[in-house]
Amino acid sequence: MSDLTPHSFDPATAEEISSAATLVKNFFNGVPLHFKSAGINEPPKQSMLEHLDAEHNGRPLLLVPRCIFMMWYIKNAPRLFEGLVDVTHSKVVYHKELPRDFHGPVDRQELNQAAEGVMADEGVQREIRRLKIDNTAVVLDPWDYGVDGHETRERQTQVFMYMRNPKNNDPDSNHYSFPLDFMVIVDLCAMKVKRIVRLPLGSDATTTPLGSDVPHPKVDPVEPEYVHHLQKVSPRTTLKPYQVVQPEGASFTVTGHLIEWEKWRFRVGFNWREGMTLHDLSFDGKSNFYRLSLSEMFVPYGDPRNHIYRKGAFDLGNVGAGVTANNLQLGCDCLGMIKYIDGCVINPDGTPAPRPNAICIHEVDNGIQWKHTNHRTGKAVVVRKRQLVLQTIITVANYEYIFAWHLDQAGELTFETRATGILSTQPIAAGAKVPWGTRVADGVMAPYHQHLFNLRIDPAICGHANTLTRTDSVALPWDETLNPLGTGYVTEETPIQRAGPLADSVAAGRVFKIVNERATNPVSLTPVGYKLVPHRSQMLLARPGSWHARRSEFATHPLWVTPHRDGQLFPAGDYTNQSLGGHGIAAWCDPESPYNRDRPRDNAQPGREGVRDRDIVVWHTYGLTHNPRVEDFPIMPAETVQIHLKPYNFCEFNPTNDVAPSTQEKNRSQEYRAPEETGEVAVRGKVCCQSSL
Amino acid sequence: MSDLTPHSFDPATAEEISSAATLVKNFFNGVPLHFKSAGINEPPKQSMLEHLDAEHNGRPLLLVPRCIFMMWYIKNAPRLFEGLVDVTHSKVVYHKELPRDFHGPVDRQELNQAAEGVMADEGVQREIRRLKIDNTAVVLDPWDYGVDGHETRERQTQVFMYMRNPKNNDPDSNHYSFPLDFMVIVDLCAMKVKRIVRLPLGSDATTTPLGSDVPHPKVDPVEPEYVHHLQKVSPRTTLKPYQVVQPEGASFTVTGHLIEWEKWRFRVGFNWREGMTLHDLSFDGKSNFYRLSLSEMFVPYGDPRNHIYRKGAFDLGNVGAGVTANNLQLGCDCLGMIKYIDGCVINPDGTPAPRPNAICIHEVDNGIQWKHTNHRTGKAVVVRKRQLVLQTIITVANYEYIFAWHLDQAGELTFETRATGILSTQPIAAGAKVPWGTRVADGVMAPYHQHLFNLRIDPAICGHANTLTRTDSVALPWDETLNPLGTGYVTEETPIQRAGPLADSVAAGRVFKIVNERATNPVSLTPVGYKLVPHRSQMLLARPGSWHARRSEFATHPLWVTPHRDGQLFPAGDYTNQSLGGHGIAAWCDPESPYNRDRPRDNAQPGREGVRDRDIVVWHTYGLTHNPRVEDFPIMPAETVQIHLKPYNFCEFNPTNDVAPSTQEKNRSQEYRAPEETGEVAVRGKVCCQSSL
Repeated sequence: MSDLTPHSFDPATAEEISSAATLVKNFFNGVPLHFKSAGINEPPKQSMLEHLDAEHNGRPLLLVPRCIFMMWYIKNAPRLFEGLVDVTHSKVVYHKELPRDFHGPVDRQELNQAAEGVMADEGVQREIRRLKIDNTAVVLDPWDYGVDGHETRERQTQVFMYMRNPKNNDPDSNHYSFPLDFMVIVDLCAMKVKRIVRLPLGSDATTTPLGSDVPHPKVDPVEPEYVHHLQKVSPRTTLKPYQVVQPEGASFTVTGHLIEWEKWRFRVGFNWREGMTLHDLSFDGKSNFYRLSLSEMFVPYGDPRNHIYRKGAFDLGNVGAGVTANNLQLGCDCLGMIKYIDGCVINPDGTPAPRPNAICIHEVDNGIQWKHTNHRTGKAVVVRKRQLVLQTIITVANYEYIFAWHLDQAGELTFETRATGILSTQPIAAGAKVPWGTRVADGVMAPYHQHLFNLRIDPAICGHANTLTRTDSVALPWDETLNPLGTGYVTEETPIQRAGPLADSVAAGRVFKIVNERATNPVSLTPVGYKLVPHRSQMLLARPGSWHARRSEFATHPLWVTPHRDGQLFPAGDYTNQSLGGHGIAAWCDPESPYNRDRPRDNAQPGREGVRDRDIVVWHTYGLTHNPRVEDFPIMPAETVQIHLKPYNFCEFNPTNDVAPSTQEKNRSQEYRAPEETGEVAVRGKVCCQSSL
Repeated sequence: MSDLTPHSFDPATAEEISSAATLVKNFFNGVPLHFKSAGINEPPKQSMLEHLDAEHNGRPLLLVPRCIFMMWYIKNAPRLFEGLVDVTHSKVVYHKELPRDFHGPVDRQELNQAAEGVMADEGVQREIRRLKIDNTAVVLDPWDYGVDGHETRERQTQVFMYMRNPKNNDPDSNHYSFPLDFMVIVDLCAMKVKRIVRLPLGSDATTTPLGSDVPHPKVDPVEPEYVHHLQKVSPRTTLKPYQVVQPEGASFTVTGHLIEWEKWRFRVGFNWREGMTLHDLSFDGKSNFYRLSLSEMFVPYGDPRNHIYRKGAFDLGNVGAGVTANNLQLGCDCLGMIKYIDGCVINPDGTPAPRPNAICIHEVDNGIQWKHTNHRTGKAVVVRKRQLVLQTIITVANYEYIFAWHLDQAGELTFETRATGILSTQPIAAGAKVPWGTRVADGVMAPYHQHLFNLRIDPAICGHANTLTRTDSVALPWDETLNPLGTGYVTEETPIQRAGPLADSVAAGRVFKIVNERATNPVSLTPVGYKLVPHRSQMLLARPGSWHARRSEFATHPLWVTPHRDGQLFPAGDYTNQSLGGHGIAAWCDPESPYNRDRPRDNAQPGREGVRDRDIVVWHTYGLTHNPRVEDFPIMPAETVQIHLKPYNFCEFNPTNDVAPSTQEKNRSQEYRAPEETGEVAVRGKVCCQSSL
């Protein structure tokens, strides 16, 4: 195996995708196909562990075949297939047709076709004429279709209607400032309009009847444009340039998809669905995580009114974080010295769809890592906190998400989510208010919604037999001898024994750790581990039993633990588009679920599966309950949340102890002088890190 | 009033402190005094409002006298005084002696004297001889004394004993790796040892009896040194320099203590107790906060054993964030173009004690502020998030705290706390484990402890009549017409009517907002406001009724609201050192508290005071339950928490809408090339912000 052979964790290449598509096409012998997805199928974990063991220990590597997992339709038909193609041996390993209530992800090409179908529809044209607006000014936002329990076998899209800003009629005007008062439901196989409905404009579901002649209201949003050349004012000039200079280059090395930086070694992957993934991570020579990924996200809307109550998008499973990955640009999306990683997904026709610059890798300075001044001697030492950032940005229709892993020199991993982009809006009557949304401009209502994410953490803390523990900080009871002042507190640590969801507790100062009970830290005399610092957030608000709740199985609890099982990557199920639930993490954990019907039972230990001291996966659900502010419009300042994974008695002492101190010689900062300060000013602070204390 | 006259919010100058001390000394007519504190006494709010109104509207300013508030003792006596000195008119406005169970803050000079007294004590010398260690290697850590209900009128300190690393015997060795097995309690008036006690070394309070001949154990901590020249290995060289260059200078202007930056205008203050304070803030021409400050912090330890159970420090009230402010150094504590602000406190002899470079002001780039790609046209716009940072760093014996305000262009304020420095350690027997601490090195136990901070938020949201509201996101009930799919949710907003503590709720997605009910946002048609994004954390673990709990009144609830009252700045009371409680925020809110005995009662509305639609103060308690990891030793990678104040329907649209897009022309990033890449590589991504989507 040469250095140029892709590693088993490397993303699918354009050649591999092309070759897999050709094999499937040949297999289907000329039947026209519509490809939905293609990406690397990681080998089963057991075989990867042998492979990685050989790799880490410099032994010869066995050839592991490269396999591509794909989804496709028979073109213009509701027949969905999945299959695995071994591109090393040029063969289709398996393929199968899925039941009719399973649906593949949407794609831009079919949504564009749907939009064309909408505009060609006579009923829609009647509505546009009724509104007395220019046909060419109409802008369509097709959305994935949230199920309502009916017509689950039909592939559909719901289309929200907007128009360009009449003041500029520019194709880049912010049409979300001009929502129209009707929407359209489209059959995606026939590519025909199924239904046109008027939208409610007030605080109940009342609408004007279709056919009634209601003109488009005159609205004048305060500042609808986010694109600079369309704005009323020129961009401000008060902000001076800020440049990051790395005169000796970057501190990381990237070899193919292998990244090494400051005691870290890991691989970066990419696929159509999860976008960026991390694999086979180790810190300071010890393994800590096998695989890290954003596994799913669900965006349910709180507007209960017919027919807009179906807004609930699985942006990974229904669309794909890899499919929507932005082409990141030098000097725009990050500063300093940047390495870009390309990705590739598939076009409907089976040709490769490159995603250049899908991931950027760069370093940032995040302030101070540690500092101490010895007041006895005045000696101060300060070490700065450098981080390695791997960032990817996705555009899902109106919204953008910025996902980034930040690794630091202290062995800590941070997963940051930024939500930005544009609010999905609905029309609202003049002067009306609704309890499930915010007026963000004249005639424009931004409905409340939630963003519920799940981070999949497949740990390998010094090996694969790991245990999730729950640790509470608990006050000791009063005791004349043992707690005479009532000040004592201790920790109570509980190993989690069974698969399932777990409750968090701020009041208990609850900490979840992943430990290796077989490896004792020689200093603390306790198991080595990592702790999860969750983002504590509100869980799903949709009612238990609602389709939103049935489908987003992960969204009801902040934490889940399951035994590792190959193929269990997506906690709302493999097929989320128009899904009915029952194939996600709740089903995996429930031994009585029909989903588990065919799984071998452990008759000695009925009930939920054991998860102590074995290969486990930890799933953290976190979210934003986003009740919009007017400040979020016309474009939303990023809302940022972070999750941290921190070594907890994993090392033997502070792993940043040997980072060189921060000095002006290296950092070359400058002292600010007020405009009125003229002449020579004594330069202060030339000598670093002394203290007058 | 000239431009050079200090503003009423400006910190006390060296001249003012000196002049105030002289006035007090003269008043005391030669009685030797020991000064404890001196700082600006901000004028009553009502008079400041008139002053600020004139200032903001360009009207002539009245002269407001500059007053210095001071605390002092009669030297070597337990007699404590406070007083107010008008340095404009050179007169003592008032002075009074405090009751004997009130104590002023500690100071380094008296703690050093106490340490000398300890070392001169024959009993201590006997213990040192018993341990067979070099007298000159002993290092003392005097701590403020947590009360136990006895001897509350005596001024005391408790001294923990350590020694230098015997391998290097360096004055900068980390003595916390070598804790001795006894401690000393000192009378701070007599400067004499009161008591020597052996420390327990196991999981109960058992100690060796004083006089018994137990040698110092042989210990060999893995890596005890954080000072680089004492470490076994040289600093790593893998990390390449990272420089921030601002070729056109900073985007902020500092005029005296007035700071203007990107729609923000405010003043920075400084005093011995709170350190950095912010005043009279406005964004985009509208006022938002009158005063922002860290008001107090409490660090109670969980080790319940006699005699170490008194560890519980109020680092602001007992010591002072201004007193312990580091002299920040160019290129060490921040990068880029930096403005330093000096402070001044008082020496015990009444001379000014300058605190040069106590605050640094600089800009940082914090990634992406907003981005959107229009998939129809490929047009992408990205704006970066610049922040203005005001940072101060304090050293309180073993610990460091880094406090920073981050202002952003979207009107958001972030208050960041980083805890770093060195764990306060106790000795532990070989092989022993305790449930209230972590072994962080051989023979070294770091007890569990909490850091409980309180942020004081004095709002002025478009005026001073403000209301705190609590908003929950609540699922709608199923309803065939109004919530047919069970997906709907709304917000329920409750104005807080009465002063007191408030509960948080993650499950309810609870949001606390400060609104002005008299000012309606013309877009949302709801009151203008700011929301608090709290740091959700465990509250005080010490038992109700314990001295820790009685003293740290703010530490039991994450949020409090009170009517504004001049002089109510410190929620554990004005005098926290060896305090008994009863003068803090719980007392202020309790109409039956003896503290409120002399306050005029509102007979029409008995009970807690009204806080709706009036001048209020909001207090946020947040903390870290810090159960140490071995990674926190010998020096602790900063533990970071952030609180945010975000405009919520305060503006009329996104206030960063007009920030210029991010471009390579300004940012000058570089593309990373792997070491093996040679020859010319096509430069990608030259044109910013295009997308292939």
